[in-house]
Amino acid sequence: MRALVTGASGFVGHYLVRHLTECGDSVLATIFPGSTLDPALKVESEQLDLSDLSRTTSVISSFRPDVIYHLAGIAFVPEAENDFQKALTANVLCTSNVFRSAHLLQSGMTVALISSAEVYGKITAAELPINESVAVRPANNYSLSKAMAELVAERYARQGQIKALILRPFNHLGAGQAPEFVASNFAQQLARIACGKVAPVLQVGNLDVQRDFSDVRDIVRAYRLAAVKGQGTFNLGAGHSTSIQTILDTLISISGIKVQVTQDPTRMRPAEVHEIYGDISRAKRELGWSPTISLRETLESVYRYWLEKEK
Amino acid sequence: MRALVTGASGFVGHYLVRHLTECGDSVLATIFPGSTLDPALKVESEQLDLSDLSRTTSVISSFRPDVIYHLAGIAFVPEAENDFQKALTANVLCTSNVFRSAHLLQSGMTVALISSAEVYGKITAAELPINESVAVRPANNYSLSKAMAELVAERYARQGQIKALILRPFNHLGAGQAPEFVASNFAQQLARIACGKVAPVLQVGNLDVQRDFSDVRDIVRAYRLAAVKGQGTFNLGAGHSTSIQTILDTLISISGIKVQVTQDPTRMRPAEVHEIYGDISRAKRELGWSPTISLRETLESVYRYWLEKEK
Repeated sequence: MRALVTGASGFVGHYLVRHLTECGDSVLATIFPGSTLDPALKVESEQLDLSDLSRTTSVISSFRPDVIYHLAGIAFVPEAENDFQKALTANVLCTSNVFRSAHLLQSGMTVALISSAEVYGKITAAELPINESVAVRPANNYSLSKAMAELVAERYARQGQIKALILRPFNHLGAGQAPEFVASNFAQQLARIACGKVAPVLQVGNLDVQRDFSDVRDIVRAYRLAAVKGQGTFNLGAGHSTSIQTILDTLISISGIKVQVTQDPTRMRPAEVHEIYGDISRAKRELGWSPTISLRETLESVYRYWLEKEK
Repeated sequence: MRALVTGASGFVGHYLVRHLTECGDSVLATIFPGSTLDPALKVESEQLDLSDLSRTTSVISSFRPDVIYHLAGIAFVPEAENDFQKALTANVLCTSNVFRSAHLLQSGMTVALISSAEVYGKITAAELPINESVAVRPANNYSLSKAMAELVAERYARQGQIKALILRPFNHLGAGQAPEFVASNFAQQLARIACGKVAPVLQVGNLDVQRDFSDVRDIVRAYRLAAVKGQGTFNLGAGHSTSIQTILDTLISISGIKVQVTQDPTRMRPAEVHEIYGDISRAKRELGWSPTISLRETLESVYRYWLEKEK
């Protein structure tokens, strides 16, 4: 398959491009002007600002992909909350430009929007595990921008010139993820302690919230399966919840070091929802997909990454 | 009541401000920098670019309204279709800035988003009359931007610091409406013919499509009733459909002149939906509102407006 990946220089983009090339796909990786693609990926790449509709149309039209994986966008919730204009451009306008370009080519190509399970918003315990048919209730600018991107995807899907996929991953982890994300953050702190750079004190926020954590490698595998076999909207995750406490305990156990855990008031952002996990039965049934990598294995890779980096 | 009206220099803004002052409300009219408010309205006005969050917060915070009627935005479908970035800024970012400002003031104020029945998209005959509980299916950039603005309103409504209203008017007509809109367009052509400026040939597009037409004066009356009594989402319209042919015939009859009607291929934009009309029973029941002005009366005012202008 000919696959175009937007946002290929990002955390997930890296894993997806690698997976696609391993599957034998012919990949064009587009990256935001000024960013760089890991040369180890050995794929064709092109700098492309997706907010430019005519350039976007021209790049897609030249490459003629069978599938576009649209990953580009702001992925960090506070960044979108503080600058909604930026989130609208990065997550909504750029999505529109990708879908509109594909639509105009009338080639029947598949366009996969990488949305987020954040669109579900304030989930109640009675709704767990949350499935794809629940009406979205975005509760912050990030999830608003993702819900808006979904409206764009649905618009063009209804017009019939493309096959649209809306993929809603829950939290996914892996080596290379930015330290703003909780597991990456804990692992980086532990690696610094292990390297003797800082005192053995680990700063944490809320530990009791429970989220649906999976491995980025399982998630990108689902993206390709969806492109090959799927249509519509899919939850992608572990299908069960894990507490931040468990993430912390597992990482400490992996590191084998003794640390003092301290709650940092600045990290205690109010968690409106205590527990979230997805119903992934649709992806299991229609894509033949299940996550296979254990949480411990995932966290080992995250810790090894930071240990290497902090050495 | 203290009422702040955004987009007050627009077609509907004019009628709303007049109605509110007639009801004894204390009105602050905000207008886009460079635009002008009809001095006959005799209300306080302020130039305000709603894309500027801090200025928006400051104006709202100084005036302390009981209710904000957020009318500002792009109202013409082709304009939004051709420039989605502009539509995102005007119809989504500005809406977010208004709701966020109201939310941050924690005053419990009412914020009425003037959305559009366009959000329903491609309605099937079986869904008529369309009611508020149908999931929106926006089919163009204009209706996308309105559906996105609704997501913003719902976000802040759920956060509990404001009372949010989402008002979905169907097509509404009146003196002063831009000639891009069909009834205004026909009336302007007839007035030009009546004044001897052009030959008695009237250019038309599709005449067989049927839409839900009401009078702008009935619509703005519903806006205020909703602010006083309502909560949630309301369809506002005639509750039945009228063909463009009937609009044309009525205007010709009002003008009393003989014209030759010619179909202009450039005006024949493909109408995906043959007939649209709304279920307005919720507004009738919860607001005690019904439209009272007949279509002929409305069209007489539209024709008189153009006759005066073309003299």
